[in-house]
Amino acid sequence: MPKKAESLSPTVVEAAPKRIEVRLSGSGGQGIILAATLLADASAQSGRQVVQTQSYGPEARGGASKAEVVISESEVDYPEVATPDVTLCLSQAAFDKYASEAPAGSLLYYDSGLVTPSAVTAAALIGGPFAQLAMQKLGKSVVTNIIALAALSSDAGLIDAASLRDALKRRVPARFLELNLKAFELGWGCDLSRQSG
Amino acid sequence: MPKKAESLSPTVVEAAPKRIEVRLSGSGGQGIILAATLLADASAQSGRQVVQTQSYGPEARGGASKAEVVISESEVDYPEVATPDVTLCLSQAAFDKYASEAPAGSLLYYDSGLVTPSAVTAAALIGGPFAQLAMQKLGKSVVTNIIALAALSSDAGLIDAASLRDALKRRVPARFLELNLKAFELGWGCDLSRQSG
Repeated sequence: MPKKAESLSPTVVEAAPKRIEVRLSGSGGQGIILAATLLADASAQSGRQVVQTQSYGPEARGGASKAEVVISESEVDYPEVATPDVTLCLSQAAFDKYASEAPAGSLLYYDSGLVTPSAVTAAALIGGPFAQLAMQKLGKSVVTNIIALAALSSDAGLIDAASLRDALKRRVPARFLELNLKAFELGWGCDLSRQSG
Repeated sequence: MPKKAESLSPTVVEAAPKRIEVRLSGSGGQGIILAATLLADASAQSGRQVVQTQSYGPEARGGASKAEVVISESEVDYPEVATPDVTLCLSQAAFDKYASEAPAGSLLYYDSGLVTPSAVTAAALIGGPFAQLAMQKLGKSVVTNIIALAALSSDAGLIDAASLRDALKRRVPARFLELNLKAFELGWGCDLSRQSG
């Protein structure tokens, strides 16, 4: 397992891109939309332009659902995510649906306990035991999304910890904040396993 | 003032469109995103495919911000709102920015106490005293968004009352639910004033 400093993927950070496309996917109830909202809010507060898009419908209730965030230094003209720089898959159905759309050079994060990365992808595969950490360390699977968001945000260099923590404080109801902040600390810089896509 | 039955605009309902584009706009803090979330959630629960998009950033904090909902009978291929069928403007800045983008044949709702419809628009202009109703009837300007959402949803025939009420019950914290349900009832079918764009 790489240490934290080594685990920072240079892909997104070094390119200093004008536009970063992030796709978060999972099953209904896994808190994908909240994770996207937190990332969008934190990015906006740090001075960037952000557009967030989420889908609802029969599909979102049953199988794989997604929420997307486009982060840009300038106004976002085109809100659609066509070639995600960062993808998260929290369920097998989400992986099977979206892995093939993650391009070469992009980062694909998945829950290593919930997903067997069987589908074809050109992206770098990065696994983390997000759901397992949530259950074993906090006894609450409901914060799997926060652990995963913190893990990928730190690893991909999407946002600084303070901005994301502040977004949690603004967005999470007071009685759940302590749990969510603990989940955030568990995920930020956590060990991840890597393989080429 | 037209009566409720007469105020039902046939534009959206009669065409039975495969795709309805809704743009809600206002200033930061007016609850535009919550209104869009409620409409999206209610529409999805009633069996339609929905994509919701919102912007964050320096612009959203200061001037006019928007949240958009695309409602479709089939999968939404293109989530961007290009020619809104329904537009809501809750602030002058939002009206000045988005009125010109509301096409002929579309419905443009605005708060008649907060907005002077000075900008050019081809849309049908439909005003309602949403903020005034919120303050005078409920003593809370914070539910202006819910009154406006209920008013335009009933007037444009976007969704049935029961579905939208259910979405409120799912999305609004318990301690604010009674206030929000009262706001909903105030807005649903309320009197609106009309003029051609």
